[in-house]
Amino acid sequence: MSKNPFFENKGPIKLPNLIYNSITGLTPESGFGSLPEDVLISDIKNLNDATKNDITFFHSAKYKELAQSTKAFACITKESLIKFLPTKCRKICVENVLLLTAQLTEQFYPDSITDNNYFNLKPIKENFNDITSGQNTFVGPNVKIGNDTSIGHNTIIEQNVLIGNNCHIASNVVLRNTILEDNVHVLDFAIIGKKGFGFIPSQSKNYRYPHIGYVHVKKNSEIGSGSTIDRGSLSVTIIGENTYLDNQVHVAHNVKIGNNCIIAGQVGIAGSATLGNNVVIGGQAGISGHLKIGNNVQIGGGSGVIKNIPDNTKVMGYPAKEIKNFLKENKNND
Amino acid sequence: MSKNPFFENKGPIKLPNLIYNSITGLTPESGFGSLPEDVLISDIKNLNDATKNDITFFHSAKYKELAQSTKAFACITKESLIKFLPTKCRKICVENVLLLTAQLTEQFYPDSITDNNYFNLKPIKENFNDITSGQNTFVGPNVKIGNDTSIGHNTIIEQNVLIGNNCHIASNVVLRNTILEDNVHVLDFAIIGKKGFGFIPSQSKNYRYPHIGYVHVKKNSEIGSGSTIDRGSLSVTIIGENTYLDNQVHVAHNVKIGNNCIIAGQVGIAGSATLGNNVVIGGQAGISGHLKIGNNVQIGGGSGVIKNIPDNTKVMGYPAKEIKNFLKENKNND
Amino acid sequence: MSKNPFFENKGPIKLPNLIYNSITGLTPESGFGSLPEDVLISDIKNLNDATKNDITFFHSAKYKELAQSTKAFACITKESLIKFLPTKCRKICVENVLLLTAQLTEQFYPDSITDNNYFNLKPIKENFNDITSGQNTFVGPNVKIGNDTSIGHNTIIEQNVLIGNNCHIASNVVLRNTILEDNVHVLDFAIIGKKGFGFIPSQSKNYRYPHIGYVHVKKNSEIGSGSTIDRGSLSVTIIGENTYLDNQVHVAHNVKIGNNCIIAGQVGIAGSATLGNNVVIGGQAGISGHLKIGNNVQIGGGSGVIKNIPDNTKVMGYPAKEIKNFLKENKNND
Repeated sequence: MSKNPFFENKGPIKLPNLIYNSITGLTPESGFGSLPEDVLISDIKNLNDATKNDITFFHSAKYKELAQSTKAFACITKESLIKFLPTKCRKICVENVLLLTAQLTEQFYPDSITDNNYFNLKPIKENFNDITSGQNTFVGPNVKIGNDTSIGHNTIIEQNVLIGNNCHIASNVVLRNTILEDNVHVLDFAIIGKKGFGFIPSQSKNYRYPHIGYVHVKKNSEIGSGSTIDRGSLSVTIIGENTYLDNQVHVAHNVKIGNNCIIAGQVGIAGSATLGNNVVIGGQAGISGHLKIGNNVQIGGGSGVIKNIPDNTKVMGYPAKEIKNFLKENKNND
Repeated sequence: MSKNPFFENKGPIKLPNLIYNSITGLTPESGFGSLPEDVLISDIKNLNDATKNDITFFHSAKYKELAQSTKAFACITKESLIKFLPTKCRKICVENVLLLTAQLTEQFYPDSITDNNYFNLKPIKENFNDITSGQNTFVGPNVKIGNDTSIGHNTIIEQNVLIGNNCHIASNVVLRNTILEDNVHVLDFAIIGKKGFGFIPSQSKNYRYPHIGYVHVKKNSEIGSGSTIDRGSLSVTIIGENTYLDNQVHVAHNVKIGNNCIIAGQVGIAGSATLGNNVVIGGQAGISGHLKIGNNVQIGGGSGVIKNIPDNTKVMGYPAKEIKNFLKENKNND
Repeated sequence: MSKNPFFENKGPIKLPNLIYNSITGLTPESGFGSLPEDVLISDIKNLNDATKNDITFFHSAKYKELAQSTKAFACITKESLIKFLPTKCRKICVENVLLLTAQLTEQFYPDSITDNNYFNLKPIKENFNDITSGQNTFVGPNVKIGNDTSIGHNTIIEQNVLIGNNCHIASNVVLRNTILEDNVHVLDFAIIGKKGFGFIPSQSKNYRYPHIGYVHVKKNSEIGSGSTIDRGSLSVTIIGENTYLDNQVHVAHNVKIGNNCIIAGQVGIAGSATLGNNVVIGGQAGISGHLKIGNNVQIGGGSGVIKNIPDNTKVMGYPAKEIKNFLKENKNND
């Protein structure tokens, strides 16, 4: 995500001010050494997106290759991971890397923490009187709607929504922080752009992780009834071109789905999973978080995918395995 | 489906005009021989519903028995299947049978292709002032509502909806192309009668298959909160008498469910599956498309059914097998 | 549930009047012997909640330990279970225990049988003009809303809803018969407090079981988009403190979830299951009814739990087993 299209970045912020304040609860006595007063940090980004003016974070050895080549000026991490980072990258070691990451994100993007409703809505016909639209449909600030697009009844378009030409948005839809390209269909009761299920667990009161990403649905795609597509935390949730989702599908934050995919009813795709092009998924299948599913993969209905799947593979089962093995094992077995 | 109750049939159409036009992209030079100018085709129907004035389609050898006895005047099919059709049935052979079928359906029922919203709605109290109804509930054309029926808040009854006596429709429901018999309960957020997840995949832009069917919910039944029941493509989606669906159930297009069934939460039933009477399905179970589930079948929660199940059988597992085998296999196995 | 906060109890009722009437279809000739005219029954309760002024029910030997120590004046049961009940508890033996239980509940709580909409709603701003609230949000009788709480658009708060301070209720939510403590977030399209999927099956017309319980969501919790939480039949459905539910989760009637739990998307928890504290459940997992899941249990995504799980256990699979066994079995098995 190069520039955040929806959430305003309050940076640059001087490095010591970013680290030592009431949000982090840290002070110059917290043991990070003296931080250079004159360094301005522009943004907080992933290891591979960060530039020399940014701060990044590194919390698990599985990202060590990305860590080795990060260009970030500084990195929030823990002692055991320091060795993987470039020498010139300034290390800020804490016990809970994600917590400090969230606290810094909150400083750059204070509006992103909560995901409450936007109340400053107006009837759609006030601002978009050339759009075909239904009853009780309301629109918030920073919304654009293309030509020949229609919007149903009781639909709420909150702030930060860009809708292309020739789209059809059905009834009772909720949209926020979302880009819909041309010719996208969104069916009844879909909820797109809500913050993801990301937080830092803590006894008695969890810490809600900021979600500064958005949802990007590419052209010619369709989102089924009752589906939920959450926006990314630091990146974008993507639905590729000409990709169709059936009803009651759940797409978690940071997921990237390729082009020409077909995803049947009640499928669930956990956070940060990546799907290639031409992927076909049967009903009720589930895909675990952070997995990579290749191009032209077919996943049987009801499968539970718990590891990466290479290109051109057909899998089925729980855990999902090559379909010929699944069928062989279950052959004379009624 | 004898006569389509909701979508207007633009037929009869002369056979050559039906085949050769800008929708199909076919011309007399396309190799079908000369088509008789004077033959009027009334409708497009399934193999077994078609009469001698209709055209039908035949795309898979698994329907060869139905094909052998079709009464249709003509049939869209492919070379390899011609041998199964009656001699007197005129064959129109193409590579993509379903695509041409969809293109002909579009000509008979041009309104069925899209499933956009109907905007010509009025507050329910204007047309039905003797109905007990909630706030912000709107009704479109061709809607009938029986006596002693109540309808909640924010509910949208689009066109082509017949509701019987003593029904209770909750809040935030969306109904279209649906018949509800007497004493049916539809709980909050149910979506009934939307077009099914049927389309012809194509790189860069899928072709949306027309859905000219409807949903028929028989008397004394209940549809749970957040459930989705899609209308059929060429036939009817049926929920039998006294059949109860729990929350978040998904019933795809053309499914037929019998009487006295109990279907627990989050169950998914894929397209064109048929269930008998007195079927009980535990939560989150899934049933693959085109299967036949017999009478008095019990399916354990979480099961994945991928083949037909005979009458009076209890199954469980993924893939589902007889429950005694499932339990034996998983006995000392924690 | 000590005193029912929402449904009015029409008791006490004289014992013979409770048993012999047109709802039960029973008469003094039905074979229960002469029932004491002067005994007043206050309420109908579970075996362990009933006091000496109440009637209870006992329909399955698996509750025999609770039955042995019940304090109820009378108990609806069947012949084969009489031996487990205290001598002084009056036994009323019938073939269908749950049916008579439902019929007595209906007499104490006549308003609980149906769960139709409440039509006597007013715009929220009429009664709560200091609450931040959206468009088309309506509120019924017996609703309290705390300070610093905001409520989105198109949300319907029917009767019997108590909302604490600093809560955020999103758009298109439906609430009834529900207590939300302080700092609870309810995301878009959640449905809380609907009657559970409880009824007595009967050919041609099922008998709807009364649901006189409610839903209690404790402080600092979050309910995800499109989730459904049903109210209890005779007891309470509980979501513990600081427990977060992701999108499209289904929690059935009478379920009790502990504190600090994390429940991912599309999980289903069947009726009367009990979960301890610090339970973590991966996406799409299902838990069968009436099970007891201990503290600190972790359940892998997609699992199907069909038996009790002791404290501090990690399980995965269908049926769910200890995760180390699940992984071993599926090791070289692609």
